[in-house]
Amino acid sequence: MTYCVGLRLNHGLVFMSDTRTNAGVDNFSSTRKLFTWETEGERLITLMTAGNLATTQSLISLLDERSKTAADRDPSILREPTMFQVARLVGATLKEVISYSNASVTGTEEKFRATVIVGGQIKGGEPTMFMVYPEGNFVEVTTETPFFQIGETKYGKPILVRGYDADMTFEDSVKLLMVSFDSTVKSNLSVGLPFDILCYESDSFTVKHRKRVEVDDKLYLKISEGWSIALKEAFASLPNYKI
Amino acid sequence: MTYCVGLRLNHGLVFMSDTRTNAGVDNFSSTRKLFTWETEGERLITLMTAGNLATTQSLISLLDERSKTAADRDPSILREPTMFQVARLVGATLKEVISYSNASVTGTEEKFRATVIVGGQIKGGEPTMFMVYPEGNFVEVTTETPFFQIGETKYGKPILVRGYDADMTFEDSVKLLMVSFDSTVKSNLSVGLPFDILCYESDSFTVKHRKRVEVDDKLYLKISEGWSIALKEAFASLPNYKI
Repeated sequence: MTYCVGLRLNHGLVFMSDTRTNAGVDNFSSTRKLFTWETEGERLITLMTAGNLATTQSLISLLDERSKTAADRDPSILREPTMFQVARLVGATLKEVISYSNASVTGTEEKFRATVIVGGQIKGGEPTMFMVYPEGNFVEVTTETPFFQIGETKYGKPILVRGYDADMTFEDSVKLLMVSFDSTVKSNLSVGLPFDILCYESDSFTVKHRKRVEVDDKLYLKISEGWSIALKEAFASLPNYKI
Repeated sequence: MTYCVGLRLNHGLVFMSDTRTNAGVDNFSSTRKLFTWETEGERLITLMTAGNLATTQSLISLLDERSKTAADRDPSILREPTMFQVARLVGATLKEVISYSNASVTGTEEKFRATVIVGGQIKGGEPTMFMVYPEGNFVEVTTETPFFQIGETKYGKPILVRGYDADMTFEDSVKLLMVSFDSTVKSNLSVGLPFDILCYESDSFTVKHRKRVEVDDKLYLKISEGWSIALKEAFASLPNYKI
């Protein structure tokens, strides 16, 4: 499993992913699931993946044009004119990778699937974000649905639904995501630290903030512990049920 | 879907279930999922169900011996000597009902499944609780796993994990469950009010408290609204992330 969230704020985009990958509980390791492509001053694209690791690694390699020697690479993701076209490229590539794996065996339709969140901004357009499905199609964030989650989405959703505010600062949005990730980590072994965080400010066309939150990150530990205490206090402040 | 939770406290048991049943989003209604059998002063057994409605209704009817005329009924669930035997009876009956439905068609193994939480106390034994699987086997609550959830369990789990305390009062435990149910209702359309609540105090062999929480229940609405505000305050109290 995996947990990734992409938020659209009024002044930018925020991405956060875990890094745990596993094939059974006795075979797990850490792998990056958050990737960026940048042409400074012109575009910044961030992509997060959930699903079969062979599929997602192939996807990233193809988008990066790693099929060519380093000198010949000119990733098409850096040439698409709009974020919509980027989402189409990601969708088509994802679908192609899954079809390739499925072609060799039958009954594996579920096994090789993956889902992607891709967001960013290209000069001339607004910052936006898409959720791309294994079938190659995709949906865009809207005012009513201002964030996307992929992977193990349920444990961390209630706090997002209640805490999200389109005007919140990057600092607060990362704090909110940390709480959402913490709830998920506490409930599902297949989601784990370190986490990757990326903040993008509208019209900057470059990374505003990038951080890897390690297992011993002091602030994360404080937020995790603090949340338990704060929740207890919040709970105590509610009106009492009478029997 | 469904959401039911059973908690074991040091001084008793608490059960709460929603009542929504649906076959697609355009076909839903309300049905009881919490049932009790009582012999005053000797035993109180409570059972909650999640899964296929035909399966769970058959299960309850068989446990109630509704196959016999009212005058001839002597439900075996009221004759089993221990809660362990009650769980075995429930498991065997559940398995039998599912097998019956599956026998007529193939490829329906998933469709007719149901899961049950059954708990209570029989004189001579301690109060306890079991989760019964569609295969007929079951697990019992332990100190480490003091509660069971069935149905749409994920959204409401983080607050239970953090808020549960074996020494909490019945009042606080119902309040905790209301918060857990509220998080679930807000995230999944297939879980809905009214809710059924039942509290059992150890060695009382009768119902301590039973309530149906209707859609317009004032306290529930206050808790639901209050929780949004309290969560925001809890969130604000956490240490700040710095960029």
